[in-house]
Amino acid sequence: MHRTKVKIVEEALDANNTIARANREDFDRHGVRVVNFMSAPGAGKTTLLERVAGDLPGVRVGVLEGDVQGSMDADRLASLHVPVTQLNTDPGFGGECHLDANMVRSAMHELPLDEIDLLVIENVGNLVCPAEFRVGEDVRVMVASVTEGEDKPLKYPLMFRTCDLVLINKLDLLPHLDVEVDRLLHNLDAVHPDVERLLVSARTGEGVDEWRTWLTELVASRSGAAV
Amino acid sequence: MHRTKVKIVEEALDANNTIARANREDFDRHGVRVVNFMSAPGAGKTTLLERVAGDLPGVRVGVLEGDVQGSMDADRLASLHVPVTQLNTDPGFGGECHLDANMVRSAMHELPLDEIDLLVIENVGNLVCPAEFRVGEDVRVMVASVTEGEDKPLKYPLMFRTCDLVLINKLDLLPHLDVEVDRLLHNLDAVHPDVERLLVSARTGEGVDEWRTWLTELVASRSGAAV
Repeated sequence: MHRTKVKIVEEALDANNTIARANREDFDRHGVRVVNFMSAPGAGKTTLLERVAGDLPGVRVGVLEGDVQGSMDADRLASLHVPVTQLNTDPGFGGECHLDANMVRSAMHELPLDEIDLLVIENVGNLVCPAEFRVGEDVRVMVASVTEGEDKPLKYPLMFRTCDLVLINKLDLLPHLDVEVDRLLHNLDAVHPDVERLLVSARTGEGVDEWRTWLTELVASRSGAAV
Repeated sequence: MHRTKVKIVEEALDANNTIARANREDFDRHGVRVVNFMSAPGAGKTTLLERVAGDLPGVRVGVLEGDVQGSMDADRLASLHVPVTQLNTDPGFGGECHLDANMVRSAMHELPLDEIDLLVIENVGNLVCPAEFRVGEDVRVMVASVTEGEDKPLKYPLMFRTCDLVLINKLDLLPHLDVEVDRLLHNLDAVHPDVERLLVSARTGEGVDEWRTWLTELVASRSGAAV
């Protein structure tokens, strides 16, 4: 039974990679940079997006919102007057705990690719499966809240290992926690040495300028010309 | 492709339920009550277990620790001198984001069922898939940290809907958050009206006596006599 199960997963991942490449080619053709944005539930992805999405100099942002159910985050972001597309994994996908390349592909014709420079795909809140499925992104950004504790890089290594930037969020809560950020960073370096990281607080705005700069430079670095 | 995928999931869930029933019969035969203990990563499951596992009057506790990788939580709990069995979903299970009945069954012969009254199965940190797989438990207890925000019951309804007790944890952080616990409870009632809930802080000990009482009464209520 086990062997069969693994085989199914491998085939699914292989098909996923094929579709992810097709997505990536479409994004490239339109000159759109794509961020796969991931975290555990409640780590602060939406708030960190709200902080910058309407305020990136010279960069037109679009958002693809992945959720099991509901459109609360999409509603929050729409108030910033950036185009937001909602993707629910519940109806039709059986309540998937992650986005995959085919789900993103099914939303492709809804995305205003000619009107944006940067697409942020907000994944389902989960530290396991989203890391296994490429969706056509250029980079992966994850949010780790200090409230989750120091040990999470060691317990969910694939997520921390496969991302390009880690936003360590809720820094304002550190005085009220039994958590040492140095130990968290030490564990991060143990699974992904020298990965870029920014210490931020979506609540106080600490580090948000650096997060804004990081995204602006990501878009500036794109090589392909927009069609 | 979709139809095929749904079919596989349904068959897997059906097989899972069959094995879960077999697990439950084994637990019942030994007079052991079983809690499936779930939450998002870093919500405080292990700390809430540490608070009570070695200190339940007249109740012998055992723990089955589910993790993608590592044994940090098992090491923490072993220091309380309760029997702890580690189950990693990474090797052999392909990094699963949840425990299923077959994984628990594979650990059955390692569990000291004749020496315990209560088995707490600490699931993988995830608000989606663990809710879909029964493992043979009597009850489901979940931890929701107030740091995760007020909206989580609405975004991950299956988890909140299928549990028997919700521990609202990290209450000590409320003064430092833009979160109203009343709104969180309102959202909880929207998806699971009148489900039992305890307001707790693993850090300060608030509500821990009530959590201890809840578990003690759960064990006292078992009807089957131990073999």
